[in-house]
Amino acid sequence: MKDVVLGIDIGGTFTKFGLVDQDGEIYNEGIMPTDHHEDVSNFISELKSNVYNSLEENMFVIKGVGIGAPNGNYYTGRIESAPNLPWKGVINLVSLFEKEFHLPVKVTNDANAAALGEMLYGDARTMKNFIMITLGTGLGGGIVVNGKLVYGHDGFAGELGHTIVDPNGRKCACGRKGCLETYVSAPGIKRTVFNLLAKETETSELIKYSFEELDSKTISDAANRGDKIALKAFDYTGKILGLKLADAVAHTSPEAIFLFGGLSKAGELIFKPTKKYLDKYLLGIYSGKIKLLPSKLQDKNIAILGSAALMWQELE
Amino acid sequence: MKDVVLGIDIGGTFTKFGLVDQDGEIYNEGIMPTDHHEDVSNFISELKSNVYNSLEENMFVIKGVGIGAPNGNYYTGRIESAPNLPWKGVINLVSLFEKEFHLPVKVTNDANAAALGEMLYGDARTMKNFIMITLGTGLGGGIVVNGKLVYGHDGFAGELGHTIVDPNGRKCACGRKGCLETYVSAPGIKRTVFNLLAKETETSELIKYSFEELDSKTISDAANRGDKIALKAFDYTGKILGLKLADAVAHTSPEAIFLFGGLSKAGELIFKPTKKYLDKYLLGIYSGKIKLLPSKLQDKNIAILGSAALMWQELE
Repeated sequence: MKDVVLGIDIGGTFTKFGLVDQDGEIYNEGIMPTDHHEDVSNFISELKSNVYNSLEENMFVIKGVGIGAPNGNYYTGRIESAPNLPWKGVINLVSLFEKEFHLPVKVTNDANAAALGEMLYGDARTMKNFIMITLGTGLGGGIVVNGKLVYGHDGFAGELGHTIVDPNGRKCACGRKGCLETYVSAPGIKRTVFNLLAKETETSELIKYSFEELDSKTISDAANRGDKIALKAFDYTGKILGLKLADAVAHTSPEAIFLFGGLSKAGELIFKPTKKYLDKYLLGIYSGKIKLLPSKLQDKNIAILGSAALMWQELE
Repeated sequence: MKDVVLGIDIGGTFTKFGLVDQDGEIYNEGIMPTDHHEDVSNFISELKSNVYNSLEENMFVIKGVGIGAPNGNYYTGRIESAPNLPWKGVINLVSLFEKEFHLPVKVTNDANAAALGEMLYGDARTMKNFIMITLGTGLGGGIVVNGKLVYGHDGFAGELGHTIVDPNGRKCACGRKGCLETYVSAPGIKRTVFNLLAKETETSELIKYSFEELDSKTISDAANRGDKIALKAFDYTGKILGLKLADAVAHTSPEAIFLFGGLSKAGELIFKPTKKYLDKYLLGIYSGKIKLLPSKLQDKNIAILGSAALMWQELE
């Protein structure tokens, strides 16, 4: 019988899960819709059935459940007003899962889970101080200091997507203006393209797309074909990211910064300008010390690994 | 015989020292010039004589030496290219002190020492997560996470004075542009006054001062008399500080931020606008949670206490 932890990644549309052993091997991976259940209890019941139905008898001992979820709070065990989930208000996720699974349960947000996944199973295994940046519809941050995830006083540390680039800048879903994720994210680079199309006179294949149609994959494909507007959009995105990562370095002085997901898959298109501007904006004492790395767990299921890592850390 | 630690605060002009017991009582305080010795070894010898000459026999057992110094690096035990000290290049401070004192020695920078002082002897005694901001000729930061000072990978974490407000902004001594300390510090508010005098048309008593003559005390005295330019300068300073503290909160989510030294002595003149803009720029989930506090150790010798705290933490 193999000791494993159930790792669960709750996303706005899908929930992924899998059993993870201490070496990071994933077994019995599964996926189910998140948004089919208005009642979170029914969601948890179905999830449990899905997990246990696929279990061969006497193969695994599940030692605990680790969950990554938007706005998941490690201290309170709750999800609080997550904009992308079907369950509104405050959800006592950990106690609901404990009631159903009769196992120890921990929750944190998705970026923190990704940081833990990188630390336990990825290229941060030998690192004590690093930052994980997740790029998707928003920008998430997970900060590790002295080998421990930083939760802060209230469990909400690492909200790097909501550091402010320009207090008079782009409107953010959070209600404020100029947040980093309004520039550096899939919708952010799209906004940049539209801004450039409005300002510049260069021809671009991106003139064919409506705001609704355009996505970051189309922008990176265009950039790879040498489209000037698309290339300028990546340069600008890297500039803003490099600037704010230089600030992040001045806070916790990490050994490395990992980029994960969405935009980071554009590879050199995003890494090259980000590195250039990070070097430019970095305080002298940090120069040449900070590695900017793609998360190697990209293709593995880091969300499941990270959620499982949260519980493995508790059990150790 | 009382167990004490020798706390030393090395400043550009003066070096202060004292023996500190575990309750934060300071004995045999002393002060000497820093800049009378071009050779750091002669400085350390004189310091040792000053400490031991004032010791009553059999009163104290000195258990170790803690030092706060500009650019002091906890990990390497060195001071590296500190612009305000008479000793140039890299100084192996800890090994030089160990050789002279035959005691355990630790060094960190002055802002980190202030944070440790606040944590062991001040209002942060019950706090696990807080930030110390020291305001002087520059702006220093000491970040505490989970009850431990954040040193980062290279020992240089917490350089909040060099986070960037505006990459095209004021020139900084560090060689870059727009660093927080070019706005929020004693020279920073003076630059703001001169900028306002250039831009505005309001009368001000500050028109009488040359750039060389004007200091932050004169600006706060004028503000206390209702001088409009001086008041605007404080409002602007608080705006920039509030904006960047909101960013700092999004990194490590502290329970409190302490302001210490220099400008912070202007009291409500600086606290009121800083609090107003911090609240304005803070991400919703942190609203109403972050205390902005003056360091209560202001009048005590926090620099000595903090340096001693560094060594007491090691000994425990």
